[in-house]
Amino acid sequence: MTKPVALLFDVFGTCVDWRASIARDVAKAALAKGKRFDFFAFADDWRANYQPSMEVVRSGKRPYTKLDTLHRETLVELLGKYGLPLSEPEIDDLNFAWHRLDPWPDTVAGLTRLKTRYLLSPLSNGNVRLLVDMARHAKLPWDTVLSTEVFKGYKPQPQTYLGACDMFGCEPGQVMMVAAHNNDLLAAQKLGLQTAFVARPTEYGPHQKVDFAPEGEWTLVARDFVHLAELLDV
Amino acid sequence: MTKPVALLFDVFGTCVDWRASIARDVAKAALAKGKRFDFFAFADDWRANYQPSMEVVRSGKRPYTKLDTLHRETLVELLGKYGLPLSEPEIDDLNFAWHRLDPWPDTVAGLTRLKTRYLLSPLSNGNVRLLVDMARHAKLPWDTVLSTEVFKGYKPQPQTYLGACDMFGCEPGQVMMVAAHNNDLLAAQKLGLQTAFVARPTEYGPHQKVDFAPEGEWTLVARDFVHLAELLDV
Repeated sequence: MTKPVALLFDVFGTCVDWRASIARDVAKAALAKGKRFDFFAFADDWRANYQPSMEVVRSGKRPYTKLDTLHRETLVELLGKYGLPLSEPEIDDLNFAWHRLDPWPDTVAGLTRLKTRYLLSPLSNGNVRLLVDMARHAKLPWDTVLSTEVFKGYKPQPQTYLGACDMFGCEPGQVMMVAAHNNDLLAAQKLGLQTAFVARPTEYGPHQKVDFAPEGEWTLVARDFVHLAELLDV
Repeated sequence: MTKPVALLFDVFGTCVDWRASIARDVAKAALAKGKRFDFFAFADDWRANYQPSMEVVRSGKRPYTKLDTLHRETLVELLGKYGLPLSEPEIDDLNFAWHRLDPWPDTVAGLTRLKTRYLLSPLSNGNVRLLVDMARHAKLPWDTVLSTEVFKGYKPQPQTYLGACDMFGCEPGQVMMVAAHNNDLLAAQKLGLQTAFVARPTEYGPHQKVDFAPEGEWTLVARDFVHLAELLDV
């Protein structure tokens, strides 16, 4: 293989553990109101509306809308379902739990090693501000923060992958997409990007049904980000 | 004043000393070929075509074209004028001298202090890759790298300032534009951004004619980036 110039990372599930982090912040908000329920179920429900809410944008039924806005709409519904009354500022704060997601244990160590040789950026459906705040919170050492927001779309729309390559001044073959999701890698591969699969078998907790293993001819398959650095000779 | 959430920085001249850095790399390329001429004059000539080359894009006569491409076109002309024959790879390398500009002495110290409280990004006409490479070279601690390339335009086009505010999830009044150029600040101020002027009186060497002093009602006027940090209470 020819070494890539730049690595693009899926973020939710690949770099950070959204489920545990969201459950934690939901717990904090609920317990402050004397409410108890299954905080992980709340996190799962929130995430369950992720693809449907983006699909309305991808299909053209709705103009580009930031993920922060989509997340907040889902949150308001769930606060009703779970019986957790919050003020508008409290809703805003809980919605920003997605800006405060914790990294997997290997994420920062792996990225730090990879940065010694490769340009690094997220390519996430999270909006720029979400990813910038998360980079500060989780100490993710990005060179820049590319979001699909920059391309006014959502993965797997082609302009998001190709736009990111263009911003790095690279041909698709000079860029590697890193993700824990086979469908993300498939979309990138079809456009000519290199691909690396890193399994995150606990992303969805006990409900995980897919992505336990690579399901395509990916350029690399790594156990974690430190292993990815080893495979990429850094 | 209400403190801003994010600071946007002009880069060429404000954060980095393009003139000395370009002259240095031109000298290196010329001396390697046994050629000697006024390397600073070459740098000045290169920069002199900066605004004209962007104006062709701003006026709509040419679709958005990366600054790397505009720089290269000017470079090829100047190599003829100065009689410096270079190969295509050598031209590419010298063109990337703009990716290797050195910071002013106070830049990194000031940005590092400012980052403890504010979100920081460039807002430069340099393309993303140029700015990413420069951030590595000059150790500029950006939170993300916003370029006018993201908005397919060039300052002072309004969509560049407003687009950057939107990426930070901010109203214009929550964002401060920092520049050594009064015209950049005037364009930002008209759109509602806060403004900070930092004089760089040696940017153009002995040929500097403007921007020795603030020429508008800017929110702040600082001697350098460390002073700016003091004025912003960090």
